[in-house]
Amino acid sequence: MGGFEYALEILATLFYAISGIRLAAVKNFDWFGALSIGFVTAIGGGTLRDVLLGVPPFWMLDPWYCVAMLVALPIVMSFKRWLVRLEGTFYIFDAVGLALFVDVGIVKTLMMGYPMWVAIIMGTITGAMGGVLRDVFINEVPLVFRKEIYATACIAGGVAYWLTGLAGGSPIVQQLVCAVIVIGLRFFAVKHGWTFPQMTD
Amino acid sequence: MGGFEYALEILATLFYAISGIRLAAVKNFDWFGALSIGFVTAIGGGTLRDVLLGVPPFWMLDPWYCVAMLVALPIVMSFKRWLVRLEGTFYIFDAVGLALFVDVGIVKTLMMGYPMWVAIIMGTITGAMGGVLRDVFINEVPLVFRKEIYATACIAGGVAYWLTGLAGGSPIVQQLVCAVIVIGLRFFAVKHGWTFPQMTD
Amino acid sequence: MGGFEYALEILATLFYAISGIRLAAVKNFDWFGALSIGFVTAIGGGTLRDVLLGVPPFWMLDPWYCVAMLVALPIVMSFKRWLVRLEGTFYIFDAVGLALFVDVGIVKTLMMGYPMWVAIIMGTITGAMGGVLRDVFINEVPLVFRKEIYATACIAGGVAYWLTGLAGGSPIVQQLVCAVIVIGLRFFAVKHGWTFPQMTD
Repeated sequence: MGGFEYALEILATLFYAISGIRLAAVKNFDWFGALSIGFVTAIGGGTLRDVLLGVPPFWMLDPWYCVAMLVALPIVMSFKRWLVRLEGTFYIFDAVGLALFVDVGIVKTLMMGYPMWVAIIMGTITGAMGGVLRDVFINEVPLVFRKEIYATACIAGGVAYWLTGLAGGSPIVQQLVCAVIVIGLRFFAVKHGWTFPQMTD
Repeated sequence: MGGFEYALEILATLFYAISGIRLAAVKNFDWFGALSIGFVTAIGGGTLRDVLLGVPPFWMLDPWYCVAMLVALPIVMSFKRWLVRLEGTFYIFDAVGLALFVDVGIVKTLMMGYPMWVAIIMGTITGAMGGVLRDVFINEVPLVFRKEIYATACIAGGVAYWLTGLAGGSPIVQQLVCAVIVIGLRFFAVKHGWTFPQMTD
Repeated sequence: MGGFEYALEILATLFYAISGIRLAAVKNFDWFGALSIGFVTAIGGGTLRDVLLGVPPFWMLDPWYCVAMLVALPIVMSFKRWLVRLEGTFYIFDAVGLALFVDVGIVKTLMMGYPMWVAIIMGTITGAMGGVLRDVFINEVPLVFRKEIYATACIAGGVAYWLTGLAGGSPIVQQLVCAVIVIGLRFFAVKHGWTFPQMTD
């Protein structure tokens, strides 16, 4: 992985941790609890992916992910108002982080010799499962299951990765197309309030 | 594993997914959420078993489990009323699926050299843990912990497997006896409303 | 591991299981459910640690952990009143168990060649994650995230282990200092109602 992608991934980890800590604050968690929820949000998806793939969790091999998450706590505590004002633009960082996590999940799974359909599932788990685990720990019904085009953006990105490969695109092009699809879908979903049809009983 | 058992296992996966999706529909999940809950219900137990055993999760090595789960969504959406009418007989499919999952969990664990008591626990995890994870994700207290003879039917089946082996039965006979015990206990539990004593505080 | 430490660990497992079963009883779980919650409380943290480390879960290699947990159910059912009277002193056993679990988690992680900061996280997971999983399964917001100096006592113990090593202490001394810090912090936290500041929204 290039230095630019690595820097982006650390930044994505920071953004995910910030969003987790902010949700924990709403629930009156203490500092430690908020930090834990930040950890789970940021590395939960990648950890589940690595456990399913049978490799050591990525954050146990490189301290900078944990440093990024530790830094998230003082950021949230110091810049509370500033973060609230940023709310409207925050989802763009979030979307970039999501796109990057999906790419990382797909590439890692393919490198281990698994077929494309497993890679799409692992990309989706990497991007979306941290939020699901966060919601389980704060005792809420996972948001991602109810009303947002979120995990589906991951799946669409994964399918785009696959189709780009079929069309002869190089891995770099595949990753770019995947990222553009994920970010684009998230952008329009938030802008236009796109949701999925609910199941009815 | 023979072709007949494999077909049964795919069918059991389909039934588990259908039951998960129906529960998610009651909770107003969207399509993606309902499908996710279907996945967790159907393969959650076997996945936890495989992670604990340290082998790749079974559904990552064979696409037909995922196909069976994807098929469950249009089935639930198309045959809603028909499924409600079947309610009274549905638990029989469910019991057959449960019995099969327990057998698979026991056989796989023993093949890896673990002792019988570990195999009984793994059979129970394979059969019952999908439902527990489903309930955690839809934010309910797991049903299996409160009032149903369900996981205990798995344990009883596992013990029967063990005793049949001690009595000189071949593995095929052991699996049959285990399945009969699981299905029989589920049948009588549902028919007669058998429950376990609750703990009192 | 010495025979004394092994006996303490089995005892700690029993205490954790008892505390899990008692919480399940408050929630009207049936016997099986209560036992399951006892299992999750007692071995959930160590199991997650072993899965992350990529080694077989400790309780699958030695039946005595399961025996200790099975014994916890009749103990809770027989000595209910006696346990309530002991409430005031119970937390001491709990603190000893916690200290031991943290030590085990740290030592096991270091033995696998991971650096100290991973070992501190694994010690904390070993000690505190069982209670988190217990709270997830009984559908409560995990207590440890909200208002107790609990997981932080684990982290403090881990840091003490590290500093003692830097100061030239042998592994035995490191483990003792870590245990004293964990037990001491828990003792004072309970005695004086120490809590962590809550995050505010």
